[in-house]
Amino acid sequence: MAMWLIRRTLIVGLVAAALSVHPVAEEGMWTFDHPPTAAIQQRYGFTVTPEWLDHLRLASVRFNDGGSGSFVSADGLVLTNHHVALGQLQKLSTEQKNYVADGFAAPSRGDEMKATDLELNVLMSYEEVTPRVVAAAQRASGAQAALDARRAEIAAIEKESLDRTGLRSDVVTLYQGAQYWIYRYKKYTDVRLVFAPEQQMAFFGGDPDNFTYPRYDLDFAIFRVYDNGAPVHPEHYLKWNARGAAEDEVVFVTGHPGSTDRNDTVAELETLRDVIYPANIQVVKRRIGVLRQFASAGNEQARQAADITFSLENAIKAYTGEYTGLLDQRIMAKKSADERALRDAVGRNPEWQKAYGSAWDDIARAEGANRRLYKQQRFGQVRGSGFAGIGLAIVRYVTEVKKPDGQRLNGYHEAQLPSLQFSLLSPAPVYPALEEALFADAMQESLEELGADNAFVKAVLAGRTPKAAAAAIVGGTKLADPAVRKQLLDGGETAVRQSTDPLIVMSRAIDPILRDINKTVETQVTSVETAARQKIGQARFAVYGTSVYPDATFTLRLSYGKASGYPMNGTRAPYKTTFAGLFDRSAGFDGKPPFDLVPRFKDARSKIDLSTPLDFVSTNDIIGGNSGSPVVNKAGELVGLIFDGNIESLVGRFVYDDTSNRAVAVHSGAIVHALRAVYGATALANELDPPR
Amino acid sequence: MAMWLIRRTLIVGLVAAALSVHPVAEEGMWTFDHPPTAAIQQRYGFTVTPEWLDHLRLASVRFNDGGSGSFVSADGLVLTNHHVALGQLQKLSTEQKNYVADGFAAPSRGDEMKATDLELNVLMSYEEVTPRVVAAAQRASGAQAALDARRAEIAAIEKESLDRTGLRSDVVTLYQGAQYWIYRYKKYTDVRLVFAPEQQMAFFGGDPDNFTYPRYDLDFAIFRVYDNGAPVHPEHYLKWNARGAAEDEVVFVTGHPGSTDRNDTVAELETLRDVIYPANIQVVKRRIGVLRQFASAGNEQARQAADITFSLENAIKAYTGEYTGLLDQRIMAKKSADERALRDAVGRNPEWQKAYGSAWDDIARAEGANRRLYKQQRFGQVRGSGFAGIGLAIVRYVTEVKKPDGQRLNGYHEAQLPSLQFSLLSPAPVYPALEEALFADAMQESLEELGADNAFVKAVLAGRTPKAAAAAIVGGTKLADPAVRKQLLDGGETAVRQSTDPLIVMSRAIDPILRDINKTVETQVTSVETAARQKIGQARFAVYGTSVYPDATFTLRLSYGKASGYPMNGTRAPYKTTFAGLFDRSAGFDGKPPFDLVPRFKDARSKIDLSTPLDFVSTNDIIGGNSGSPVVNKAGELVGLIFDGNIESLVGRFVYDDTSNRAVAVHSGAIVHALRAVYGATALANELDPPR
Repeated sequence: MAMWLIRRTLIVGLVAAALSVHPVAEEGMWTFDHPPTAAIQQRYGFTVTPEWLDHLRLASVRFNDGGSGSFVSADGLVLTNHHVALGQLQKLSTEQKNYVADGFAAPSRGDEMKATDLELNVLMSYEEVTPRVVAAAQRASGAQAALDARRAEIAAIEKESLDRTGLRSDVVTLYQGAQYWIYRYKKYTDVRLVFAPEQQMAFFGGDPDNFTYPRYDLDFAIFRVYDNGAPVHPEHYLKWNARGAAEDEVVFVTGHPGSTDRNDTVAELETLRDVIYPANIQVVKRRIGVLRQFASAGNEQARQAADITFSLENAIKAYTGEYTGLLDQRIMAKKSADERALRDAVGRNPEWQKAYGSAWDDIARAEGANRRLYKQQRFGQVRGSGFAGIGLAIVRYVTEVKKPDGQRLNGYHEAQLPSLQFSLLSPAPVYPALEEALFADAMQESLEELGADNAFVKAVLAGRTPKAAAAAIVGGTKLADPAVRKQLLDGGETAVRQSTDPLIVMSRAIDPILRDINKTVETQVTSVETAARQKIGQARFAVYGTSVYPDATFTLRLSYGKASGYPMNGTRAPYKTTFAGLFDRSAGFDGKPPFDLVPRFKDARSKIDLSTPLDFVSTNDIIGGNSGSPVVNKAGELVGLIFDGNIESLVGRFVYDDTSNRAVAVHSGAIVHALRAVYGATALANELDPPR
Repeated sequence: MAMWLIRRTLIVGLVAAALSVHPVAEEGMWTFDHPPTAAIQQRYGFTVTPEWLDHLRLASVRFNDGGSGSFVSADGLVLTNHHVALGQLQKLSTEQKNYVADGFAAPSRGDEMKATDLELNVLMSYEEVTPRVVAAAQRASGAQAALDARRAEIAAIEKESLDRTGLRSDVVTLYQGAQYWIYRYKKYTDVRLVFAPEQQMAFFGGDPDNFTYPRYDLDFAIFRVYDNGAPVHPEHYLKWNARGAAEDEVVFVTGHPGSTDRNDTVAELETLRDVIYPANIQVVKRRIGVLRQFASAGNEQARQAADITFSLENAIKAYTGEYTGLLDQRIMAKKSADERALRDAVGRNPEWQKAYGSAWDDIARAEGANRRLYKQQRFGQVRGSGFAGIGLAIVRYVTEVKKPDGQRLNGYHEAQLPSLQFSLLSPAPVYPALEEALFADAMQESLEELGADNAFVKAVLAGRTPKAAAAAIVGGTKLADPAVRKQLLDGGETAVRQSTDPLIVMSRAIDPILRDINKTVETQVTSVETAARQKIGQARFAVYGTSVYPDATFTLRLSYGKASGYPMNGTRAPYKTTFAGLFDRSAGFDGKPPFDLVPRFKDARSKIDLSTPLDFVSTNDIIGGNSGSPVVNKAGELVGLIFDGNIESLVGRFVYDDTSNRAVAVHSGAIVHALRAVYGATALANELDPPR
């Protein structure tokens, strides 16, 4: 039950991109415009048709806060992971009613509970817009001007599309900028919680078992999508196949992998290894310490801190695995050899050499700047408290929306505003004491890292200690109330300028400082690397042709593979587990947390068929963001629900190894068996898996 | 269910020895004269008394063909592993009745089946004889003469003890020759099989799961010891405690670890790494290929080959793990640093430097010779077929027994003769076709490695191909009949000289060649290293004092530790497993071999309490030879049965690491639960675990 939500806030300065050199085995997160049909035909004798692809695409759902899902009933049920739903479960919970710990089951459709601020997207159409974007950049002179022109053109394309179709329209960068595409999404914002098991059953084994296998987790949750107050009836949804996948059966995963760094240059990987990962690991460990201390104060504090703690523990485990990969000299040697081969191939063709040859050195130079600027980037911003960041977003919103679309900061373009408003005005509960503790710790850390004379630090602290500043700013703000936020947004620049709310006052003070840092990074790093990455992406196409896939970008991807165990710790991991294994693993630790079973499960033991499959693994190539992805068979039926990768898959951020990289899924049969035998949710089970 | 039999025949040229420098945590295989009482007191608050030690020692049993066991009932029941009993099960089986595959349960005491050639030993007394042995060696001049004198003195001590006590008397070398002790054993040769489960349940998970954990094996077998036709009533036996050990509970293991190399010098480890392990792995892989081919011919061929195949597959997995340890630069660096520290400490004391300082360089020089002579040692001897080796043993027997005891080859001393005769006259079945195939392959290999002009190769082949020679020698010999062997032994030198049996003819031809090689190795390697190792052992005593334990030597040892899980592959391994896990792991592979369950188990599923513990792990320091060792609690009760180490323990041959080195045991409760619920062996279960 790893946090296969994408972690955009934590990996800073990393815009990974481009395509893999030699896709091997089941490697690849393929875009739907360019599926690996020949490889699938050759390996599995299965013919991928456009209709089959459309069915999968239109049944696939993106959770806009970072996860995946799928339509699984004619009446709009959406299946995802419990840990994708976790944020919403937390927001719906109160001191009196803890849906995270206790689970939730709507007795009837009328009891389905509207999620606080959940936006789902379905990819309706896409088309390539590379020529427009590239032409705009070419008309500019200088890297920074090209970056600005590219962004303006992208904003224009998005706006035009939004106006024309009414669909959420995002221009996405693929193959490191060698291609740009516009993706258009149907957007759903009335999404209601139907069912969630207890977190302990979804996340059985807790942090130790996270990112590992064999696993015994029921990491699922079920929503229903509404439109105009009634359940939607999606044209495409996945039929449930409770038999799951047999060993070695071909299976497909659709979903929204967040990011990979498979096409980073060696210089970029070295920055990750030497600078960024050590810093991330340090920061997250520190923050987990604060959360534990906060949680130790009482049950309600523990409940409030649970979601973030879970997310950070998940992150630290992922980082540690990824970092270990970067420290592995064999992996770095392979990366160097691959890069050398590509550069040599480019060098042997004078035309290519002229067009692309400088890119690697350009990036290496920019990475030098990136390292120098890194501390300021990492520690010179509002961190720790997501809530505290809302102040800055409001300050910027009122300024940016007055500018021509093409000149705005990224995130404030016209086509991006509906989703931004949705999140800024979210009625989700805010826990002031928790936010204050996190903000205080982050500012203490900024003070330690940047020093008291740093402009950002001075602007936030204004002579106070980090603790006092946090008390004044987070403790004193009224922005926890969404109505107050709405007043400010509606009041525009004047309202914001006149506000005496301490969070707004602070945000006004730091905004110019952050814009300044941002500009420096853009000039010295982003603009240079954007141009250079595009060259490398083009060089790959030139040298290796088009049988390649782009790095993950939180856009819809297809991966193929088969249900298969793998060599593990001297023996083999089985391709599936059963409910018997859940009871075995719990007993192996005498039922001590995190290996305890909720009473409901212990009581239902005699009703559970222990030989029912619970989880399984497949060779599908996935990464964070694929959480909640459906696993689908040739017939387009749902056979499983991705919720994790094994520990051996963490290095998959940089390189895919089919011998032991495995995606971990909940078995389709486990979900309906649990609903029927343990939870008595017969109607729901029958809606998913109609009795034959 | 690893082959925790010792593997003396396969590790050649390795006489490991001496004591560990810094025993940490639960490290150590301690002799009973020198138990770690202070450490046990300090860590677990438990006072080890002489009476408690005597109880454990006298209830402990050595399986003379390489394993351990314990008395577990007043009527002489002995508990050991199925895989320790495997050789005897194979010998008792026929084409019609396969006790290995089908198991065995004696319906009544009268049905208990006498093992073919099983000798059990109980350590009755021991005393140090270092002064006598050292004095004898000191009187000699030169390393070779010292070696001869030492051996003669040892033979004399053993003979005196045998004559005086009637007990089997072995002088054992401890601390690399810094100490010599005489161990006296009561010997039992009427040992009858009472119960064995199907090998599939004892070895569930097969070669993949071997040397790993979590495990789900019922690796036990039960014998009863008879004397004068009636069950013995041992003064000491272990009471059964079916509750097993709780997590973190202190537990003790008594048994007979075969050998460790923890005190080898770096030069010796390098020979292992560069020469011996690669050769062993190559030889064993080759032989496994021959066995598989032989077994593929039919069910009976498969049955005949099963025992050896199991043993070699076990060996290759152990070797591979150990070899990986040797290739690990961190381990070698630690070994170098430890050696450097000891040498530096010796160097700082002029007296020590004079006495011990040359030892490491002496060994390094001898290892040079060892490497040069290695091929001849490894491939210039009768190998492949254990049966073919009997010819040489008979040829030597009749010659050696006529010499004064002190001048005989090792293995033919007066005190060693009873056990030698017992094994030479064993009525165990011989499978001629299998022996022929193995011998042909080994000789083909010798031909390839040593060349056609090699004296040994010429003497065996006598102008024939290896295949033809094998057919003539192994196919033509009559020595499969124990009566023929007895005639030759009784007929003495004359009978052997006049024999035209082709195996005797060959053995007469190679005997002088092998004696010659043996002498060269003794002069250049063994004698030098024996003297040098003794110095290093003494140096360790001088520098580190006596709170140390000697390397394993197939003598009785005590280890202590606690039941405890450990970090594994990104998560934690539980301290115990249950029957539920057995069914889970089988289902995870769809019941395909080696994860299949025998019908009896599937049928009994409803009668099995799936929450009953099955296997567990503890931090006790063990190695091959500890197979069948009892796991005992503070009360001296049996709580488990050692049958394996985890994959992380394989490097324990060279260095102990308590974070993940674990001994794997069958839970005491699992054995009696299986006997009652699955096998209906109520009387036996009640004899082990009397109803209260």
